[in-house]
Amino acid sequence: MLSLDKVFNAQTVLRNLVRETKLVRAYGIAPDCELYLKPENLQITGSFKVRGSAYKIAMLTDEEKKKGVIACSAGNHAQGVALAATQNGIKSLICLPDSAPISKVEATKGYGAEVCLVEGCYDDAYQKALELRDREGYTFVHPFDDENVIAGQGTIALEILNELDNIDAIVVPIGGGGLISGIAYTAKQIRPSIRIYGVQVAGAPSMYNSVKDGEIECLSSVSTIADGIAVKKPGENTYALVKEYVDEIALVTDDEVSSAILALIEKQKMIAEGAGATAVAAVMFDKFHLKGKRVVAVVSGGNIDVTSLSRVIDRGLLKSGRSSSLLIELIDKPGQLKEISRIIADCGGNVTGVHYEKGDTESVNGCFLRIEMETRDFEHVNLITQTLRAEGFKLV
Amino acid sequence: MLSLDKVFNAQTVLRNLVRETKLVRAYGIAPDCELYLKPENLQITGSFKVRGSAYKIAMLTDEEKKKGVIACSAGNHAQGVALAATQNGIKSLICLPDSAPISKVEATKGYGAEVCLVEGCYDDAYQKALELRDREGYTFVHPFDDENVIAGQGTIALEILNELDNIDAIVVPIGGGGLISGIAYTAKQIRPSIRIYGVQVAGAPSMYNSVKDGEIECLSSVSTIADGIAVKKPGENTYALVKEYVDEIALVTDDEVSSAILALIEKQKMIAEGAGATAVAAVMFDKFHLKGKRVVAVVSGGNIDVTSLSRVIDRGLLKSGRSSSLLIELIDKPGQLKEISRIIADCGGNVTGVHYEKGDTESVNGCFLRIEMETRDFEHVNLITQTLRAEGFKLV
Repeated sequence: MLSLDKVFNAQTVLRNLVRETKLVRAYGIAPDCELYLKPENLQITGSFKVRGSAYKIAMLTDEEKKKGVIACSAGNHAQGVALAATQNGIKSLICLPDSAPISKVEATKGYGAEVCLVEGCYDDAYQKALELRDREGYTFVHPFDDENVIAGQGTIALEILNELDNIDAIVVPIGGGGLISGIAYTAKQIRPSIRIYGVQVAGAPSMYNSVKDGEIECLSSVSTIADGIAVKKPGENTYALVKEYVDEIALVTDDEVSSAILALIEKQKMIAEGAGATAVAAVMFDKFHLKGKRVVAVVSGGNIDVTSLSRVIDRGLLKSGRSSSLLIELIDKPGQLKEISRIIADCGGNVTGVHYEKGDTESVNGCFLRIEMETRDFEHVNLITQTLRAEGFKLV
Repeated sequence: MLSLDKVFNAQTVLRNLVRETKLVRAYGIAPDCELYLKPENLQITGSFKVRGSAYKIAMLTDEEKKKGVIACSAGNHAQGVALAATQNGIKSLICLPDSAPISKVEATKGYGAEVCLVEGCYDDAYQKALELRDREGYTFVHPFDDENVIAGQGTIALEILNELDNIDAIVVPIGGGGLISGIAYTAKQIRPSIRIYGVQVAGAPSMYNSVKDGEIECLSSVSTIADGIAVKKPGENTYALVKEYVDEIALVTDDEVSSAILALIEKQKMIAEGAGATAVAAVMFDKFHLKGKRVVAVVSGGNIDVTSLSRVIDRGLLKSGRSSSLLIELIDKPGQLKEISRIIADCGGNVTGVHYEKGDTESVNGCFLRIEMETRDFEHVNLITQTLRAEGFKLV
């Protein structure tokens, strides 16, 4: 049974294994409320997951420890289990689908785990892990649906309540529900008046749907940039705890998550992964009407690969008018690029790409010119397009 | 006169004005040494600069406070002065060249300063600031060459030494020299055996050259992505302190700084600006031979605009083989793009851009195809190019 004692015990056990991340006051992200971040992206392994795994592993019997642990994950859970096992001097085996990115495999090995690549998808790797558990006697470390794992995540609530008084609400991402179960249970035991809000992405609303419909449901597919919480089915323990202790769940879109990632970079100098930024996105886009409240948003992890990060930033720049692209129809007349360049430069735009493209132009000798630019905002983009039009250029 | 008392006094005065940033153990950036980061990018205003300004302003007489302060800066110093003045309830006026980016002007205003845009370059804005000081009686807050400012920055050393024992070395970025002067002076008073290393960028080596040649020199121009330390001339106080208390200065290149920014993102989930990443770059690229040592690198600031960040990431991806671009000469035969796409997909590459380009091809009907791809590393790029060549394609 989950109990407050267990969470306090987890805090003691974890003292030297994980970091006590300090709340960060976030200005400028959601000016209407007093927002603090719980930066578990700065946790060792870059995610809160290590708390639950480390407590689970510490609680194993000597017999179980001797045999080692097994888990199935391509992400933060794998790294948490690997590190926690290594710290305890026991063996860990992580099953991964063979399509998992090299970087994740390397990171998991780097924390001391053995990796077993399984042909197929996540479900195949999961089956393989269960098979190996039964055959070899490993203990399976579930990513969320386990009371010790949940107790480990609950230590986050102890730290938050210990550091800051008079908190009105804590906002928490939901994947399988382990993180929010631990936080909601713990916080409500200690301070029943505190509100706990959960956040899922629109592309993976498994807990949201299940709570709404009053029974555990399984999604047929999930699709989101927040891959860390792309879970098809809530756990049984976590579903029950969320139903009892979470006040409300909201959904955010991938674009809202991208904006939150960008805001965390610009305002807080912090990297969050998609899943890690969902709670911040929910506060930014006012899903819970927290005006005037003192709010803690949990930034659950920061393990985003740089290629995805680069895409999120590019999309964020485009969506805020800080980069833009023009398509101009040129007639067959010399000196047009020079003239266009001059106009853009005079308006303060910075050209970063030029491509000539053939196409269905009015004149047989015409062509299209695509210009990519860095701009200040949409007003600036408008200034440039209006000036170009005023000087007789035809923008498509 | 600078004294240890003054630094301790600054610490007391700053207690409620600035954040005591906590050291972060950095794994994986420089595996040969035990590296800690002093994350002043997580300081309020995103930079250490607020420490010096806030102490300087707190020490003004009531008479001086009534008249207000003036500074000249387009960057972190402006924001530090603005915030510190606002916290003290006094007026601040910041002179900026009118070419300063809108975002910096807005940030400075956001902290409560009045902004005076001056036609011309930095030197013109500086002259204007001195003129206004003389006419209106404002106190000029120098960005580095001032004992109270230096004492404020020295509080960083107190925090570091208070938090961690047995430090062998502290590595610090150098622009005008205010930060390293405060840290070196303070640390050497308390623990004379500690080594203090300074870092400049190759594109702005003013302190490096001055110390090497034994006299203050002025660079005619500076060019670097580390704009926060692109200073043409060291201060007189800072030059004297660096000469006396700094053990060695090294230079890093812009590419090394970019790699450090990327490593901080990937390993530490932290955003550093160019200047802020120079000390980490020096440790990563082993400029001071710190193998086996316990080292603190000061990450001085995180105010990089997202457009620059995006460029740094793109360059970092290119330099590590995680993005790449191929130019293939096509002959006039149908189905070639299909074939090339198939080969790249089979090799696990992810096409992100395709452009047809005319050019000096062998056949009059030929053309060039430029393919942009996401790849895993250089080995992966080689695999793809070799496979394409083996299948008869001509890579340029």
